[in-house]
Amino acid sequence: MEKIAIIGTGLIGRAWAMVFARAGHTVKMWDNEPDAATQALTLIEQALREQKRFGLIAEEPQTVRARITAAATLKEALFEADYVQENTAERIDIKKQVYAQMDAAAKPECILASSTSTIPASVFSEGLAGRHRCIVAHPVNPPHVVPVVELSPAPWTAPDVVARSRALHEKVGQVPILVKKEIEGFILNRLQAALLMEAWRLVKEDYCSVEDLDKTIKDGLGLRWSFMGPFETIDLNAPGGITDYAGRYGGAMYDSMNSVRYEPWDAALIGKIEAERRKVMPQEQHAEREAWRDRRLMALIAHKRGMADRE
Amino acid sequence: MEKIAIIGTGLIGRAWAMVFARAGHTVKMWDNEPDAATQALTLIEQALREQKRFGLIAEEPQTVRARITAAATLKEALFEADYVQENTAERIDIKKQVYAQMDAAAKPECILASSTSTIPASVFSEGLAGRHRCIVAHPVNPPHVVPVVELSPAPWTAPDVVARSRALHEKVGQVPILVKKEIEGFILNRLQAALLMEAWRLVKEDYCSVEDLDKTIKDGLGLRWSFMGPFETIDLNAPGGITDYAGRYGGAMYDSMNSVRYEPWDAALIGKIEAERRKVMPQEQHAEREAWRDRRLMALIAHKRGMADRE
Repeated sequence: MEKIAIIGTGLIGRAWAMVFARAGHTVKMWDNEPDAATQALTLIEQALREQKRFGLIAEEPQTVRARITAAATLKEALFEADYVQENTAERIDIKKQVYAQMDAAAKPECILASSTSTIPASVFSEGLAGRHRCIVAHPVNPPHVVPVVELSPAPWTAPDVVARSRALHEKVGQVPILVKKEIEGFILNRLQAALLMEAWRLVKEDYCSVEDLDKTIKDGLGLRWSFMGPFETIDLNAPGGITDYAGRYGGAMYDSMNSVRYEPWDAALIGKIEAERRKVMPQEQHAEREAWRDRRLMALIAHKRGMADRE
Repeated sequence: MEKIAIIGTGLIGRAWAMVFARAGHTVKMWDNEPDAATQALTLIEQALREQKRFGLIAEEPQTVRARITAAATLKEALFEADYVQENTAERIDIKKQVYAQMDAAAKPECILASSTSTIPASVFSEGLAGRHRCIVAHPVNPPHVVPVVELSPAPWTAPDVVARSRALHEKVGQVPILVKKEIEGFILNRLQAALLMEAWRLVKEDYCSVEDLDKTIKDGLGLRWSFMGPFETIDLNAPGGITDYAGRYGGAMYDSMNSVRYEPWDAALIGKIEAERRKVMPQEQHAEREAWRDRRLMALIAHKRGMADRE
């Protein structure tokens, strides 16, 4: 059982602690804010009870909780660690500093993985003696509910580090995918961006309302995409598979998108979309709705597990 | 209770018959193939039993089935009909011909709606005396499971026809959305196309495998999108809502997509994606996997209804 260190105990760091602890790993957490790691333990207890309620953990919450401890220093957190998941602020200077500290403190074979969603591993690991053991392991918020993890190695990340990261994430029940070459936004956020650019444009040019566009996804396309990807979806949408689909729809699809040029989201458009959303959900319900989203995600994961068990 | 006519009794036509019949409407079906409408009744019986098994209909399948009859002629199907859902082949000449026949046969206030996914209402209704009562009501396959319906009026479609179509689809439990102006692909398929163009490009340029890309959606983004749309998703992803999100991520998102130019899907790329899919799912499992998809969709809809009831 690999020993895990969590650096940075905000929302993402706490979620990672639970991911590893519920799979049986011992976890040491550290945060540069003095009491943050200790306070994180309380929030983790609450979150574990909620996961228990949704059937997402089999053990008692306190059994899982007992595997997690708060460390007083980064060095203490990394002592004997086999894998570090780093979750500090999205700033290059901070990442560089913390990676230098981690590279100095961790034992040689320890993997140093970052939760960053925007900074390539080559940027924060360049120049480190241990740059071969640095990698991005980008989760979706919150990773204790949403399983995908984008593994994005730098050009110099050792193949063995990629392989061990992938194996570890699979073992703890996450779904790791490999980003073979560094790219801005990795895979998931690029796919989101592609859809969003078109969504914003359709509203800007007044083809539909914000609320109606959301319905086309949540009551339409998003249903399939919650248990099949876009490639499996189109493969099954033509009797002859991908080639058949491309022959039927590829040309029209290319033509319809190729003619589009996107513009930056300007203040007028941002204001229009904000106003339409505020009619659907007043801003004062934001936190409450976030909690609703996380409950729905947990229930959906429980549903998907139930379906997988039946198959 | 509106009387419904279904013209064309393939997969989509049969699904529509069930949508209206399970909501209590009487439905008359006609197909230009001599025995198709009668054979459709047998398939509908099977499909209704499956919906019963997933808890998607409250009544007995035979009660719902009894509201559906096969008509011998188009004229008989349209006799006294208040709403026609047309599901003939995706060919302009066929649509024009059948719309002329329907416009002649239907009573004046009857709505003539098309399931077309590619032909704007202005194209097949131009020149008809009753062009004001023609509209596209584009479903997602299969509409008895996936609720969204894109209502896309022609410039001359009467506002009252749009309003009555919307009200009818809401009443039968579908989720109608309004496409305010005609546009190729309507809304849903444009959003799918935007994501697919980027997905194909990422595989072409070897950033990830087909299987891994599918995982980023089904184990990541697609989870949220199955119960929230893309706008609600980003609204909740920044504490201050849409404006906050646009300020944090809008610039980078625009830059990352603006630099991309897409190319038509060539034979080599189609072959590559087909080959990767065939490793995950052999072609001989295609029909079986389609049935699996529809069962998963039904189970997901049942799950979503359960969650909505709890809230």
